[in-house]
Amino acid sequence: MIKIIVDCYGGDKSPQANIDGALQALKDERMKDLFLVLSGNEKEISNYLALKRTSKLNNEIIDRKISILNAEQVITPDEKPIDVIRFKKNSSLIEAVNLLKKEDDICGMVSTGSTGALVAASVLLIGRLKNVLRPAFCPILPTMNGSIVGVCDSGANVDINPEYIQQYAIMGSLFMKSVYNISSPRIALLNVGTEKGKGDKLHKDAYDLLESTPNINFLGNMESRDLLSGKYDLVVCDGFSGNVLIKTTEGTAIELLKKLKEGIYSKFLYKFGGFLMKGLFRDFKELMNYQNYGGSVLLGISKIVVKGHGSSNSKSVHECIYQAYSMERNSFSINLENELSQILKTNESNIEATKEESL
Amino acid sequence: MIKIIVDCYGGDKSPQANIDGALQALKDERMKDLFLVLSGNEKEISNYLALKRTSKLNNEIIDRKISILNAEQVITPDEKPIDVIRFKKNSSLIEAVNLLKKEDDICGMVSTGSTGALVAASVLLIGRLKNVLRPAFCPILPTMNGSIVGVCDSGANVDINPEYIQQYAIMGSLFMKSVYNISSPRIALLNVGTEKGKGDKLHKDAYDLLESTPNINFLGNMESRDLLSGKYDLVVCDGFSGNVLIKTTEGTAIELLKKLKEGIYSKFLYKFGGFLMKGLFRDFKELMNYQNYGGSVLLGISKIVVKGHGSSNSKSVHECIYQAYSMERNSFSINLENELSQILKTNESNIEATKEESL
Repeated sequence: MIKIIVDCYGGDKSPQANIDGALQALKDERMKDLFLVLSGNEKEISNYLALKRTSKLNNEIIDRKISILNAEQVITPDEKPIDVIRFKKNSSLIEAVNLLKKEDDICGMVSTGSTGALVAASVLLIGRLKNVLRPAFCPILPTMNGSIVGVCDSGANVDINPEYIQQYAIMGSLFMKSVYNISSPRIALLNVGTEKGKGDKLHKDAYDLLESTPNINFLGNMESRDLLSGKYDLVVCDGFSGNVLIKTTEGTAIELLKKLKEGIYSKFLYKFGGFLMKGLFRDFKELMNYQNYGGSVLLGISKIVVKGHGSSNSKSVHECIYQAYSMERNSFSINLENELSQILKTNESNIEATKEESL
Repeated sequence: MIKIIVDCYGGDKSPQANIDGALQALKDERMKDLFLVLSGNEKEISNYLALKRTSKLNNEIIDRKISILNAEQVITPDEKPIDVIRFKKNSSLIEAVNLLKKEDDICGMVSTGSTGALVAASVLLIGRLKNVLRPAFCPILPTMNGSIVGVCDSGANVDINPEYIQQYAIMGSLFMKSVYNISSPRIALLNVGTEKGKGDKLHKDAYDLLESTPNINFLGNMESRDLLSGKYDLVVCDGFSGNVLIKTTEGTAIELLKKLKEGIYSKFLYKFGGFLMKGLFRDFKELMNYQNYGGSVLLGISKIVVKGHGSSNSKSVHECIYQAYSMERNSFSINLENELSQILKTNESNIEATKEESL
């Protein structure tokens, strides 16, 4: 059995979307041995679940595959992460993190709550996997040829060094293998030009390190305009520019579609044209809908932590649960520890070799 | 008279687009006292100009408002900037830069050639304005409410410090005033969150410095998703994330429109809908067409240097010339030197005050 906690509060559509997502996941044929712990106000969750007892299947799921972790405090968006850890110990998020840390048979959690609080609680209360320098976020974006691309790190760390980026490549690559079955993820380093030697010292050094890393499929530098091209499965970057990358993509897409919509409503002729193209726009919107691609996994924590978008609907929560499930099913954490300890040895022997050469 | 050099080679559509753009600019009512020097192969340029002698106005312009600077070497895209400066002294770009440096009555130049070579030649051969720490690029993007936004720096410098960003705000602000008549440009700092205190040390320090800079309209941090919102006139950033910002915006827009076009051609119904919406798509394409917004000015060089996109058409070259013209017409360089020397004094007195406080 794979046991995952779903933090049911903190999202814009919580707790309904989170509970609905949990029920959907429990019906998903791909996750037959899934068990979910729902954290949050027990009374509210129970009442909502009671409404869902509309079929034999639902009853069975609610009775046999769900438990509730009571937590009555709610985190507000403006609270500082460190205050949440200190003063909101009975919040759905902190209760979830503490249970996750304590129970060996629970492998991970999904939350749509405060990103800062989730990162701080994960790092400080659960801790990192062995040899992980910095946990990093890896959201998934759709590309224009129908595939997906992961971006690691999208903003967990803004003060970084080349070794972190090397680890992002290893963690992200294993993540893309574990969840999306991509056998040898094509990795690019986000940079200001495609040629080797581009960028600041950090990115030049990161390039060299990635080039010398065994067992990853590093293809070289990528300019940000190529993110959606479908040429890469994973883009590694410092958290600052990764954050700019993700939010610009999202922002540009939203602004363009908004502008197009405004245009369509501006004239009868366009409205009619738009009506004929309804199916196309629907498919297009669906392709771009981040809700279909789950959440942003915080890679490198010793338990699996998935951060869903604040505005996640049930489908998105369902997908987040699937991400956590697949990681556990494919032994992500054990494999990552093994890979990182190998890399550590390779890095050390590279340093030794360089020393010997310079003697 | 305002005299500007147009490097006629190096772009994808050179020399025709560059010469056509020059002729258009010389007919532009806003630039009645413009004189252009066209640099490049004299014979080719003369021959092309001869074809344009189709009206009295054209004849007058060609005879009285144009001169040619002969330069027979051509720069190839793969040449290193430093090699261009050393070995391509008779190229249209280097001849233009040298003439610009030498002649007091020539105020600036426009080039659609190699960015690296243009930056290197501008910095090394022409030099910076007094007190400028690092010249920076400031391209212009259209926003979704019909206004424009400048982004400074979009990639001239990747290794930077907070004082550079402060200068980008001053240079960019003066640029937006000089060329686009925006009286008090609303400035944002590109960051990973909107609250003060977000980002790495560089951006935290830059924030503080911008906040204490007199005579600029600094509104705070901006997340990259807001670039096209129309809320800001100028976004300042380190060259690395600025480059990511610009290229992601461009890349996302191109990929989305390509995907939409593919969709339209996939079904007869959509084709017909698309036909009805032809006008809308044309307006939309026009709004997003960077050719309408001139080039990326390299701010901080002691003469005006405008870098047009490599694929610039005549309209874009025309607009680049207008940018250079407006900067000179509004005494950009003198004003910038004055502002920077004032800021230097303010920064020094702030440091003095801090020292006194800590005593």
